[in-house]
Amino acid sequence: MTELRTLKVALLGCGNVGAQVARILIDDAGTLAPRTGARLELVGIAVRNLDAEREVDLPRELFTTDGETLVKDADLVIELMGGIEPARSLILSAIQNGASVVTGNKALLAADGPALYEEADKAGVELSYEAAVAGAIPILRPIRDSLSGDRITRVLGIVNGTTNFILDQMDSTGAQFADALAEAQRLGYAEADPTADVEGHDAAAKAAILASLSFHTRFDLEHVYCEGITRVSAADIAAAKEAGFVIKLLAIAEKIGNGDGSEGVSVRVHPTLLPREHPLAAVRGAFNAVFIEAENAGELMFYGQGAGGTPTASAVLGDLVSAARRIVLGGPGRIESTTGHVPALPIDAAITSYYIGLDVADQPGVLAKIAQLFAEHGVSIEIMRQTIHRDADSNVESAELRIVTHRASEAALAATVEAVKGLDVINSVTSVLRVEGA
Amino acid sequence: MTELRTLKVALLGCGNVGAQVARILIDDAGTLAPRTGARLELVGIAVRNLDAEREVDLPRELFTTDGETLVKDADLVIELMGGIEPARSLILSAIQNGASVVTGNKALLAADGPALYEEADKAGVELSYEAAVAGAIPILRPIRDSLSGDRITRVLGIVNGTTNFILDQMDSTGAQFADALAEAQRLGYAEADPTADVEGHDAAAKAAILASLSFHTRFDLEHVYCEGITRVSAADIAAAKEAGFVIKLLAIAEKIGNGDGSEGVSVRVHPTLLPREHPLAAVRGAFNAVFIEAENAGELMFYGQGAGGTPTASAVLGDLVSAARRIVLGGPGRIESTTGHVPALPIDAAITSYYIGLDVADQPGVLAKIAQLFAEHGVSIEIMRQTIHRDADSNVESAELRIVTHRASEAALAATVEAVKGLDVINSVTSVLRVEGA
Repeated sequence: MTELRTLKVALLGCGNVGAQVARILIDDAGTLAPRTGARLELVGIAVRNLDAEREVDLPRELFTTDGETLVKDADLVIELMGGIEPARSLILSAIQNGASVVTGNKALLAADGPALYEEADKAGVELSYEAAVAGAIPILRPIRDSLSGDRITRVLGIVNGTTNFILDQMDSTGAQFADALAEAQRLGYAEADPTADVEGHDAAAKAAILASLSFHTRFDLEHVYCEGITRVSAADIAAAKEAGFVIKLLAIAEKIGNGDGSEGVSVRVHPTLLPREHPLAAVRGAFNAVFIEAENAGELMFYGQGAGGTPTASAVLGDLVSAARRIVLGGPGRIESTTGHVPALPIDAAITSYYIGLDVADQPGVLAKIAQLFAEHGVSIEIMRQTIHRDADSNVESAELRIVTHRASEAALAATVEAVKGLDVINSVTSVLRVEGA
Repeated sequence: MTELRTLKVALLGCGNVGAQVARILIDDAGTLAPRTGARLELVGIAVRNLDAEREVDLPRELFTTDGETLVKDADLVIELMGGIEPARSLILSAIQNGASVVTGNKALLAADGPALYEEADKAGVELSYEAAVAGAIPILRPIRDSLSGDRITRVLGIVNGTTNFILDQMDSTGAQFADALAEAQRLGYAEADPTADVEGHDAAAKAAILASLSFHTRFDLEHVYCEGITRVSAADIAAAKEAGFVIKLLAIAEKIGNGDGSEGVSVRVHPTLLPREHPLAAVRGAFNAVFIEAENAGELMFYGQGAGGTPTASAVLGDLVSAARRIVLGGPGRIESTTGHVPALPIDAAITSYYIGLDVADQPGVLAKIAQLFAEHGVSIEIMRQTIHRDADSNVESAELRIVTHRASEAALAATVEAVKGLDVINSVTSVLRVEGA
């Protein structure tokens, strides 16, 4: 057997994922080398604090605080520091030195991806980031390569395990949001400051990345409409359940015709009702899944662990071995495909269904009044269901009305809900949620 | 914008999938060119009969019966004729002429893949075959690239839509195999001669391909243990259902330790009981899905349409665009990864659980006798359940015994079943089925 060449690998960051990547590079060196066609030698790990405790016991001499020097000597650089700086500068430095880069930094990619892709393209190196979306699930490479001859029309993703765990808890135990969040924090599924997860920011960054690859057009965070799960109540979940739905936080990117022959893409994150028989509805706990609709392929789903050090390390290593094979075999890096040129649409242009819960006066003619108002706004009602409650003591009756609409523009739906609020027979609008997959 | 170069594409075969591939190449030329970095020009379609009716209306001048001349003039060749010859010779001819080849021919790959990979490797061209396994589902590329830094331990696939449809029909309607098959034939899900599907041969070819890529070792049909679904009865399905299982025809490839530190791979196709809550259990009708367990990634599932002209064409086009990009960007083809060197194991070495249905004499001590016999063979019983039937007229009692074992070697299980058959208290063994995923 011929002697394999050695490729130097620099690792930036040694948290949850980084430590597992380092462990695998060291422990599995013998397996990885023949598959890659090169020995992958971990030459250093840049960290902020040399003395921090690590999840994995790693050789002390690998650690350095000087990332800038480390990347200058590497053939392959893995960036797992997170955040914008110094990650951005170190990646640019690596690219300019001719190294291929693997990153899991969704925030950086959503904020400043295009500049990085351009630099990589110019330098003829690969910049890959499978780990940035849906952890261990191979999803970006299939979109970019396997579906490159197809036309994706819609992507629906459960891409945040924390919120999926919380919503799943609420669904299975009837808990309120605050209690389910506390449980998630106790089990380590949610951070002490859960804002990025529960407000949907993490999912929004992933939505921008998914949309960009799916529609061959650059989308960033500012194109993403974002609504988190903090206002989803136990009552919403219970009502959805009764109607045969489950509530999931979905990252959605879909192509929409503008009615004038032109097309645009709606990219959005919001709590969504899904029929319980939809494949995504069965995705429980901290798992992730991405559901793709394409013109030729039809419906596809990719399912797996969306987070965790070891699963995410699998995605990083896949990118690393692929980039290393490219170096061994020769040939330039992959280029970003941005030839789609479809505009991002505002949330108003999205076409969805609404689930609306109303507390209404129990008077004759209320249903007709509300139905009339929906019709005036061009919104068609699919299901309307009234439940009358009678308080045994006071003998006062109240009525709860639940409406599921057919698909209509978000603008028409929003206008309808506003108008409903103004009706004198309405005590309150108890919930407004979007529905997909019905 | 710079003028794009043109790559000549030859298509061999114009059946169900081929016709859709031709249609997409013509209709979507404008979308595919910028993504590929080259115009993909369909220069000809080789067919046996120029006058045959096609599913799609295609320019008559594209058709030829001279495949040999056609491939000599192409940069990219798509082989969708099926069968061994002349597909094999034409692919070799294309490779030797420096063309990259895309094929969906699982029978050829399972029979003679290694010789083709070697030729492609020698010529520095790509040979890709995503369409050969699970139709539209991107599964081979994720295994080869995305999971290249991980260690796959087990693959469970529903890779034949015909048998999945039949078993699904039996499960949901209680139909016998013959009736469900007739229904599948009526709906076009099964062919007039259904042998290749219902005997598991189609799934076995796919199992060999999945095993080869997953374990970086060449496996072919002769390494695959194969058992079809023709002997699965309505009673089996009903009993499985009652016990919380669904019966699926699975293609299985899994790494098994031999107990002496060495490892091997068991590759097999057989009807299998799966717990109803397993992600694969929800794969209905003609859909396909592949469930993968890897050391780092954990559990992954890939789901989508496993057959049909248009979905399968999506996989062909994905391979074609990827191969064309490689030609545009330069660099050699991908090499086959065969550095795993794990031996194929015989079916006896597989570790599974059994579900066993027995018609037994209703006498005291029968259960003890049977349990004793299992223990003697080193097979541990997980569940044992007896149902007594009394015929109202004759007043004769019969007893039905259902046993689910813990995991044990196939050899031990088979020996146990043989021994059970010899017991005088056994009237008959009504079913023996393997269980996975419990």
